[in-house]
Amino acid sequence: MRVKLTISYDGFDFMGYQVQDDLRTVESELELALRKVCGKDIKTYASGRTDRGVHALGQVVHFDTEKNISKDGWQRALNSFLPLDIRVVDVEMVSPDFHARFSAKKKEYHYLVETADYNLFQRRYKAFYYNLDIDLMKEALKRLCGTHSFKGFCSASNIAGKDFVKTLDEAYIIEEGTTLRFVFKGSGFLKYQIRRMMGIVLEIGRGRDTLDTIDKVFMTEDPTISRMCADPQGLYLVKVYY
Amino acid sequence: MRVKLTISYDGFDFMGYQVQDDLRTVESELELALRKVCGKDIKTYASGRTDRGVHALGQVVHFDTEKNISKDGWQRALNSFLPLDIRVVDVEMVSPDFHARFSAKKKEYHYLVETADYNLFQRRYKAFYYNLDIDLMKEALKRLCGTHSFKGFCSASNIAGKDFVKTLDEAYIIEEGTTLRFVFKGSGFLKYQIRRMMGIVLEIGRGRDTLDTIDKVFMTEDPTISRMCADPQGLYLVKVYY
Repeated sequence: MRVKLTISYDGFDFMGYQVQDDLRTVESELELALRKVCGKDIKTYASGRTDRGVHALGQVVHFDTEKNISKDGWQRALNSFLPLDIRVVDVEMVSPDFHARFSAKKKEYHYLVETADYNLFQRRYKAFYYNLDIDLMKEALKRLCGTHSFKGFCSASNIAGKDFVKTLDEAYIIEEGTTLRFVFKGSGFLKYQIRRMMGIVLEIGRGRDTLDTIDKVFMTEDPTISRMCADPQGLYLVKVYY
Repeated sequence: MRVKLTISYDGFDFMGYQVQDDLRTVESELELALRKVCGKDIKTYASGRTDRGVHALGQVVHFDTEKNISKDGWQRALNSFLPLDIRVVDVEMVSPDFHARFSAKKKEYHYLVETADYNLFQRRYKAFYYNLDIDLMKEALKRLCGTHSFKGFCSASNIAGKDFVKTLDEAYIIEEGTTLRFVFKGSGFLKYQIRRMMGIVLEIGRGRDTLDTIDKVFMTEDPTISRMCADPQGLYLVKVYY
C-alpha cells in the first residue's frame, strides 16, 4: 500500500528537510516516527526539499507499507511519535503510481513580510523588511511570471545537468494589515529560487535595485547579478497540487 | 544614575528569568549584554521572576551605572548585544529611590488559551485547551478576585515566612476569535499563582471541577486540593505599574 501524508512543520529548529548526518531534519524525524510505528526502516519520498528555517503547511510525502492501518490510525500513531513542531495533517491511501515528487503538478509557496516594528514573537515566522514600495514590488512580481529559465535566480552550487525552465503561473501580494503575504504558484521551483526572487523584489521595493534588473537576470542567466536571498523564516510551502 | 529598562522576551527557550548556574536565563543574557556595554559586571533588579517558558511584553528591570549614555543609546547598545528573543523596548532614567521590585504597585498578566485545533506555529505562544464553558470560567474568575491569602494557589515549595495575602483587582476574559485572553491585574502574584489559578479555572471550564473548589481552597489554604498548573507558554507578564 502507498500512503500519502500531508505534513506541516515549523522549520525554525530544523536543519532543513533532508536527512543530513546526525542533524535534526524533518525527514529524519519523520522516518524515526515511521520506524517506531512500523518496527522497521521505511523510506519516504517528499515533493521536494525545503531549506533550513523554511516552514510547511502542506508538504507531501509518500511511503510504501504492508501495514494495514486506517488513515486516522496513521495520523494518530505518527503524531504520537513526532515532535510537536511536525504534525501529520492529512493521510490518504493512493495508487502505486502516485509519487510525491514526480506526480506534483504545481506548488504554492507564501512568503510573509512584516513591515511593522520588530516583534520577537513573530521572529520565527515572518521576515522583517521596511520602507517597501508595494506598487513597485507588484510590478516586479509580474515580470517574474511566465515560462523562463530561472537559472539566474537559483543557487549557483546546484547546476549540473538541470532543467532551469519553470513556469511561474502567479505571483502577487495580499496585504494583511502590516503584513505582506507574497503568493507564488508555479510548476516547480529551483533551490533558493523563491528566496532569491523575493530578494530582488525586496531590493526593488526598497529602491536599492530597479525593475530592469529582473530582465537582465533572465537575459544573462547570471546568478551573480542579484545576490540577495531573503530570510528563510518568511517562507512557507503551502500546498502541492497533483 | 539609575536606569529603568522595560524588556520583552519570548520565554520558550529560556530556563526562566533568574540566573541559574550555566543555564540560559533572561537575567544572565541581560547581564551579559550589560557587561559588554559597561565593561564590568552590573547587577540588575527585576520586578519579579518569571518561570521557564513564560513570556514578557513589559518586564521591568533597573540597574545603577556611572555611564553617561542617552536613553536611545542604552536601547541600541543593549539590543545590539542581546539575543533576538529579548528586546529592550523602553528606557527611562529614574531617581535613586525607584526600585523595579519594591516600587511596583500593580502587575498585569495575560494568559492566552487557544480553543481551535492545535497549530504548531502557535505552540510556543498559546496554551491549547478545549470544550470550555466560558460563562462558568467568568464566574470562577470573579470568585478569585478580592483580597485573600492565595497560599492554596501557590507553589508549596516556596512557603517559609511569606505573606500570602494579595489583592486580585481584576480577572476577566477577552474573546479574540478562537483565542481566549485571560487578563489578571493585582497587587502582586505568588510563585505559580496565575498558572495554578488558571489551572482551576480551566478545570471548571471543562466540567472537571466545580466553582465551590475555589472557596474551599481559599478557606483551607491547602495547595493540594487543586493541583493543576496551566502550561507556561500561555502566560505573559504584560505590564508593571509604578
